[in-house]
Amino acid sequence: MAPSPDDTYQLITRQLQEVLGGDIIKAILAEGRTPKCYWGTAPTGRPHIGYFVPLTKIADFLRAGVEVTILLADVHAFLDNLKAPLELVAHRTQYYKKLLLAVFSSLGIPTSRLRFVEGSSYQLSKEYSLDNYKLCTLVSEHDAKKAGAEVVKQVDSPLLSGLLYPGMQALDEQYLGCDFQFGGVDQRKIFTFAELYLPRLGYAKRAHLMNPMVPGLGGGKMSSSDPNSKIDFLDPPEVVRKKIKNAFCEEGNAAENGVLAFVNAVLIPISELRIERLQGKTGADADEGASAIGDQTPFVIEGAPEGTVFSIQRKEEFGGSLHYKSFEELEADFVAKKVHPLDLKTAVAASINRLLDPIRAAFQEDEEWKKTEKLAYPDPNAKPEKKKKVKVYHPPPPGKGKNAKPADAAAPAPEGQAAPTAPTPDATASTAAPAAQEQSTS
Amino acid sequence: MAPSPDDTYQLITRQLQEVLGGDIIKAILAEGRTPKCYWGTAPTGRPHIGYFVPLTKIADFLRAGVEVTILLADVHAFLDNLKAPLELVAHRTQYYKKLLLAVFSSLGIPTSRLRFVEGSSYQLSKEYSLDNYKLCTLVSEHDAKKAGAEVVKQVDSPLLSGLLYPGMQALDEQYLGCDFQFGGVDQRKIFTFAELYLPRLGYAKRAHLMNPMVPGLGGGKMSSSDPNSKIDFLDPPEVVRKKIKNAFCEEGNAAENGVLAFVNAVLIPISELRIERLQGKTGADADEGASAIGDQTPFVIEGAPEGTVFSIQRKEEFGGSLHYKSFEELEADFVAKKVHPLDLKTAVAASINRLLDPIRAAFQEDEEWKKTEKLAYPDPNAKPEKKKKVKVYHPPPPGKGKNAKPADAAAPAPEGQAAPTAPTPDATASTAAPAAQEQSTS
Repeated sequence: MAPSPDDTYQLITRQLQEVLGGDIIKAILAEGRTPKCYWGTAPTGRPHIGYFVPLTKIADFLRAGVEVTILLADVHAFLDNLKAPLELVAHRTQYYKKLLLAVFSSLGIPTSRLRFVEGSSYQLSKEYSLDNYKLCTLVSEHDAKKAGAEVVKQVDSPLLSGLLYPGMQALDEQYLGCDFQFGGVDQRKIFTFAELYLPRLGYAKRAHLMNPMVPGLGGGKMSSSDPNSKIDFLDPPEVVRKKIKNAFCEEGNAAENGVLAFVNAVLIPISELRIERLQGKTGADADEGASAIGDQTPFVIEGAPEGTVFSIQRKEEFGGSLHYKSFEELEADFVAKKVHPLDLKTAVAASINRLLDPIRAAFQEDEEWKKTEKLAYPDPNAKPEKKKKVKVYHPPPPGKGKNAKPADAAAPAPEGQAAPTAPTPDATASTAAPAAQEQSTS
Repeated sequence: MAPSPDDTYQLITRQLQEVLGGDIIKAILAEGRTPKCYWGTAPTGRPHIGYFVPLTKIADFLRAGVEVTILLADVHAFLDNLKAPLELVAHRTQYYKKLLLAVFSSLGIPTSRLRFVEGSSYQLSKEYSLDNYKLCTLVSEHDAKKAGAEVVKQVDSPLLSGLLYPGMQALDEQYLGCDFQFGGVDQRKIFTFAELYLPRLGYAKRAHLMNPMVPGLGGGKMSSSDPNSKIDFLDPPEVVRKKIKNAFCEEGNAAENGVLAFVNAVLIPISELRIERLQGKTGADADEGASAIGDQTPFVIEGAPEGTVFSIQRKEEFGGSLHYKSFEELEADFVAKKVHPLDLKTAVAASINRLLDPIRAAFQEDEEWKKTEKLAYPDPNAKPEKKKKVKVYHPPPPGKGKNAKPADAAAPAPEGQAAPTAPTPDATASTAAPAAQEQSTS
């Protein structure tokens, strides 16, 4: 039996912090159509497991039959760091695509309704550029600055790019043809900006669905530039365990606790997804889970009571394992200091490793992905490949060489007389050559 | 004998208020190459005779062998007034082109080294857009605002477009391949901005040549939005005389005097050009003046002393005609109240009419230009063309018509039964339909 529009709306919006324009989605569902969603990410640094947070929610969208567009904002990534040439950004775009697809596979989520779009495929087009300029004649500095206040880096002397990004993100909704845009609640002002300005260009106002912000394992917002809060999708199990062990997770403090937050935003939803699937509830695709890679067991210990969504293994001598039917139960126990941080961390590290196992395996089996990874994130410490030395003959000054005959001084050098060449420049340094010059002179 | 690089440099830079980067031009001339110039104008309102000021200087460039690009900034014109659809802007672009060519013809300046480029031909391209975004990641709000301070409309809530324009004008130098940009001295901050930022994108720094600002006939800066200071190129002689008669020109006050300023910036240079040509000095083209349209006599009365560049006819009873060998002489006489404003105005009106005669004639002879003019600047008071009424048959309600037969009620109406249609919408209103919707949905 097909789910009711109400059930589908419930699946689309569950666990969100805020929904703006939910009626737009309800109306589409009521007509029996499939809503279209857009979520964007800039392929810059190596994605960390914080990406599980939006991806877990996007899994809900896909299960609800939503058509999802993931914008790989390569133009933004390029502008974010002009030192990274477009070629490098292209490899990173490819890397992100591979990784995100592997994550959905590992979650058993079919991706037939998922498409990737690169920003460069339309953000530099005539139509988009003209719309962008038009928007700039309508948007005041004040409104643009306000819109970007939470997501644009705030510096003493703000750059024009920061003022343009909110408008571009609004235009993306139109150019990607979405009914709603999804993002963290830190995007709220960007989203309301889009709601205000798109209609002024004659375009439809879109709905906006917002995830709560999840603190990183270091305590703050998850960010790929904070090494403490960053677990790479390809980190080996022992590194994951070590990073979780070092995460900030104070006994009784649930407020700034990245470890607990990850359980809430990622582990329990995935556990629930797996339980639902074991019960035959599959979402829009009947074959959901059929081609899932890796172990699909919920994060629940065998023998746990019915309804458990998360278990913490603990030796009998310390009170035995703990089983929770909801995050709230776990949180209450943590605040009451009935759960020790170390036990929580051990359970979380094990769960993360179970999530990452199939992704690491997929990477190992995919030669193309491995090649892309090397190109996208070249090892900064890698020794430059030894180039075959070019033989250069420095002739002795006229009359100074062995057997000097002035007339022959410039004759080709015999093999083996090569002078030492200058050291080959560092491979990384050459990759990071100033892009501005390389890209612009065409 | 070819002129020396020094003479050419002198011709390029004479009468300017300021030159930045003159060495760049000197170096090109020293190599025997021809410098390339770019000057831009947005095809918005009807051009007024204030355009003679830059065009007189551009005539110098062309005579010096400079390759001149006139940017018809149609994208800017469109953005300047989103209510004017792109189609209207295209007609205005065409109108400007026709007019500017007619002006050069009337001055006898060959235009083989003059080209027109429309902004839309490159400002919406991928390369330009990416460069524009790159620039936006380098330029601070503060610098952009400072650059536009004198030319961007200053309003309470500044728009983003005003911040983008300085960067675009800098990029234009690169994309139009110029060695120097020419403009009024009000562009100075835009020009120094370009000098600072183009090299940061890896592009060459250009020279900048600046004309002094010339007050309008109303007293202020010449502007097409100030009807008092605006004499249209196609105004008939009596309108020119009337407008000049009403111009602000206070006895003894040379400081804020648009009439005197026009003599200095336009009439004397053109007079000198004609005198030079009569003496066989033709600039880079030996056939300069050969195909000039209209009377090419200098603004000097017959019998004036050798060296006169401007004469004011006056009856013997009022002291006889006045003859000046330089603007400074005229200015000194005016300040000393030896020249009455009315006599000056009469001489200036007559000179302007002599400048406009061949342009008006060219317009009258050019059917295409006349058609373009109608499309570019439709008469706001014109009555809409009567559309042939579409015949619509409103059937009477079933059983209410003459000879009602319910089964026939929806049958086609016989000729002549048409109900009156809604009035045809005003032609002007439909031309000015919201462009945002029309242009953007493609």
